[in-house]
Amino acid sequence: MGPDMSERDSYFLNPVGVVRSALKRREDAPRQPFDSAPEAWLEIKPQFAEAFEGIEVGSDIMVLTWLHMAKRDVLKVRPRRIDPNADITGVFATRSPDRPNPIGIHRTTILAVESRGIKVAHLEALDGTPILDIKPVLPEMQES
Amino acid sequence: MGPDMSERDSYFLNPVGVVRSALKRREDAPRQPFDSAPEAWLEIKPQFAEAFEGIEVGSDIMVLTWLHMAKRDVLKVRPRRIDPNADITGVFATRSPDRPNPIGIHRTTILAVESRGIKVAHLEALDGTPILDIKPVLPEMQES
Repeated sequence: MGPDMSERDSYFLNPVGVVRSALKRREDAPRQPFDSAPEAWLEIKPQFAEAFEGIEVGSDIMVLTWLHMAKRDVLKVRPRRIDPNADITGVFATRSPDRPNPIGIHRTTILAVESRGIKVAHLEALDGTPILDIKPVLPEMQES
Repeated sequence: MGPDMSERDSYFLNPVGVVRSALKRREDAPRQPFDSAPEAWLEIKPQFAEAFEGIEVGSDIMVLTWLHMAKRDVLKVRPRRIDPNADITGVFATRSPDRPNPIGIHRTTILAVESRGIKVAHLEALDGTPILDIKPVLPEMQES
């Protein structure tokens, strides 16, 4: 097992659910998230159902996902949103899914809370994307 | 090793750096992040230096951290910011560090970029907190 197994365990993610979406392939993902991303369902594992108590329809949330189709060994990319002749740049200066720890942050709004999961608006994550966390949007996230 | 070792590997985080801050203990962390969180340094591992190319002083970023002092088996909490008599609620309806995948999102501004790392304003993360990712703040994060 090796001497650093406990450290490995401490950095191991445990997805709490999965995205169900009409977006099936990476090339289907919209270039501008808020332009055309479809509604989606957050399907939650039953053992994490309690963690959702208190979440309300109409509230704004941040959905954190594990971008499982991303390449983790990419450190520089050519940003796709801008000039195709642009210089390549470090991934931390971009929103590319390709990055050492490919965690996606998706701001969206809760449309429905049902036994099958949570319906949200405008989620630019692919079907099958693991869900890591959900956080309420706080005022300081937009004010500062 | 077991049949799910490859899955375990795929969900394993590889921190790209560490927070250096005057906040040394969890009880030192400010209750309202933007009120009193101090400046901090993002100390980056040399092998990830390339990923920072293109990051500019004055730009707003989201720093994603691994809240290593958090409890991962907590699903419900009593929100500390509000009425102490409030009902306990699911962690996904709160910003508690205690949650199944304790990833912190910290919005801040870059003050300096030096060989020792990146200096940022108002970071409510403890000294020694592992850094997972850095993303630029995009307009849709505050507009929608």
